Amino acid sequence: MSLLTKSCANLVDEIRVKNPLIHNITNYVTVNDCANAILAIGASPIMADDCEEVEEIVSISSALVINMGTLNKRTISSMIMAGKKANELNIPVILDPVGAGASGLRNKTVSDILSEVKVNVIRGNLSEISFIGGLEASTRGVDTAVEDEKNDAVELAKRIADKYSCIVSVTGKVDIISDGIRFARVANGHKFLSKVTGTGCMTSALVASFSGITKDYYTAAVTGIASMGIAGEIAFEKSGHKGTGSFHVQIIDALTNINGSIFIERGKIDEKKY
Amino acid sequence: MSLLTKSCANLVDEIRVKNPLIHNITNYVTVNDCANAILAIGASPIMADDCEEVEEIVSISSALVINMGTLNKRTISSMIMAGKKANELNIPVILDPVGAGASGLRNKTVSDILSEVKVNVIRGNLSEISFIGGLEASTRGVDTAVEDEKNDAVELAKRIADKYSCIVSVTGKVDIISDGIRFARVANGHKFLSKVTGTGCMTSALVASFSGITKDYYTAAVTGIASMGIAGEIAFEKSGHKGTGSFHVQIIDALTNINGSIFIERGKIDEKKY
Amino acid sequence: MSLLTKSCANLVDEIRVKNPLIHNITNYVTVNDCANAILAIGASPIMADDCEEVEEIVSISSALVINMGTLNKRTISSMIMAGKKANELNIPVILDPVGAGASGLRNKTVSDILSEVKVNVIRGNLSEISFIGGLEASTRGVDTAVEDEKNDAVELAKRIADKYSCIVSVTGKVDIISDGIRFARVANGHKFLSKVTGTGCMTSALVASFSGITKDYYTAAVTGIASMGIAGEIAFEKSGHKGTGSFHVQIIDALTNINGSIFIERGKIDEKKY
Repeated sequence: MSLLTKSCANLVDEIRVKNPLIHNITNYVTVNDCANAILAIGASPIMADDCEEVEEIVSISSALVINMGTLNKRTISSMIMAGKKANELNIPVILDPVGAGASGLRNKTVSDILSEVKVNVIRGNLSEISFIGGLEASTRGVDTAVEDEKNDAVELAKRIADKYSCIVSVTGKVDIISDGIRFARVANGHKFLSKVTGTGCMTSALVASFSGITKDYYTAAVTGIASMGIAGEIAFEKSGHKGTGSFHVQIIDALTNINGSIFIERGKIDEKKY
Repeated sequence: MSLLTKSCANLVDEIRVKNPLIHNITNYVTVNDCANAILAIGASPIMADDCEEVEEIVSISSALVINMGTLNKRTISSMIMAGKKANELNIPVILDPVGAGASGLRNKTVSDILSEVKVNVIRGNLSEISFIGGLEASTRGVDTAVEDEKNDAVELAKRIADKYSCIVSVTGKVDIISDGIRFARVANGHKFLSKVTGTGCMTSALVASFSGITKDYYTAAVTGIASMGIAGEIAFEKSGHKGTGSFHVQIIDALTNINGSIFIERGKIDEKKY
Repeated sequence: MSLLTKSCANLVDEIRVKNPLIHNITNYVTVNDCANAILAIGASPIMADDCEEVEEIVSISSALVINMGTLNKRTISSMIMAGKKANELNIPVILDPVGAGASGLRNKTVSDILSEVKVNVIRGNLSEISFIGGLEASTRGVDTAVEDEKNDAVELAKRIADKYSCIVSVTGKVDIISDGIRFARVANGHKFLSKVTGTGCMTSALVASFSGITKDYYTAAVTGIASMGIAGEIAFEKSGHKGTGSFHVQIIDALTNINGSIFIERGKIDEKKY
């Protein structure tokens, strides 16, 4: 068992005692699952997206998730206001750039957020993170993303981590988490996770939950991502081939029951320096 | 068995025959659970929040829920319009002041609703109801809430019930329902209910469902609140320590199956005069 | 086994290979279930409703669902923009006129959509489809709907199919799907389907999923509607009388597992010419 695995396992046990409040500005597709995942892991969710209250709400929270799932103009300005306030108060900001690369609105929004808000952790899939890898001082558009997708996720994550001085996570079959100096690989998970909507959003919510109890956002990101991977494995073991409805329910059950020992027993995490 | 318990049990049997339509202006986090809870108990849900249609929709409904979960300017005016129309037509209005006390927007909104709409039942947790207890002709802000939280829920509920001539419910470990003259205490429930998002919102939706079939809103509130408490107990018995995902599913199952006899057998309700 | 049943069964097997992307502009009540139903049947969902991106999103999709569940002014214009773009690109448009007949806003919206967008499939319940049956060049309002409700669903469907040159589906105890020349009747389903919110919305999402892999929208509609009916039957067999929470989970499980053989074995589909 690596030192990193042990640190993650400690966070898993700590969060149920500390019960951080996590502010989510997120989409209406997976918001219920995000709230229940946050509760299941031992934190508390608060969802608020109106520009008249997001600064106050983020001020009483331990972390902020900005999730671009169902973007609209009303909430984009709330995202940026809440993010700036979080920065001012040293509250960590987790960005889930859902669909970055898929439309001009999403591309401009991710670019605006990254220029106006200091983001502490970015978590997305390869296509979304590749889009961010292609961003320059001025956005060059979707085409560059294609080029970046040819790059290796490990190198891509380093480049973005260096550029924005943040933790970058690329989730997929094997998840990569990088702070620019070292990177962790998490080999937990199950293919059914891609057959339930919102498992990515829930993962970002878990990363935020752990970021709410430590300033070591790299370890928080690894913990959140590995927790979802482990929960997916346990969920499949319990629900078997019943279907994705039962699997979905079992993910939340597994998150309810995960603890440091389960994490140590099941975590498939290794770490390397660049 | 008290007379109150018997009256509640009758409502539980009656609702499946009368099938009232319940209009919900609510949040996007727990709205699906609210709709399914309303269906499970034997009523029918309708969700509509645009100012161009809320007056028409409330006019064909038997009760209106105003839930402040994910407030925004667009829906605040819809809430007040629908509430006023409901008042005009003698349709009961149930207010769930989610997060009252947590932001200026929520504080102002709850104050505006209570001055512009005659609310028939308020249901919230101690912190939310305490905030309302601190409201004066002009809002004094969050600070007064702190003072009120020191008061006993039973006295707090009476004070608000008297001031707004409505039923006030404070849900928690033991739930208090007051009409200012008497109060009921409901000791049903399970601690897992606080680990699933939306159990409070669903409770308000159940209170509205029963308010749709009787003018005795006090009994309707006790019935809705006790139904959720009983459902929580049954859900835990069926799902055991599996986790909050299974427990969540079992809440809806228990609401599907609850009837007058189960209510009488399990209801832990007592009543006192002030 | 009819030729139609065989064609439907082929689509059920084909969709898991072709994995079409389905764009949904839908309501916030049942959106999570729609996404999971689309995933379970073998397609991929994308939810996007801002006018600044719907044209781009629909352009990369294989079908568009316009669902009127929680209408508001912001999304109405997005629906029409996306619909026109879909028409331009020959991408099928599926309309779910939720609550048509219940408010002026809904009535005007369904009328506007049908005049500005070429819709390929309409799916609703008898009351909603009857409202559409009463629409003339200028809307005559809700009153005409009453008159139409006296008509037989089979004749009503033909009349609307002829008028709008589209497939019309009226779902209920027995579902009717008409292209104006012939009609199919689907006798699958279970009464519990009306006790879970969103089963209608999910059905429209399934119709869209199959419309994403064939230009024969009549067969696509029959396949989507029968798939939900079959899933409802299997779900009830697995969850028995446990309640609608378990039944809800089992619907998604059944959709995960449905294939051509199950479809052939269980499909209760017949077809007639007018």
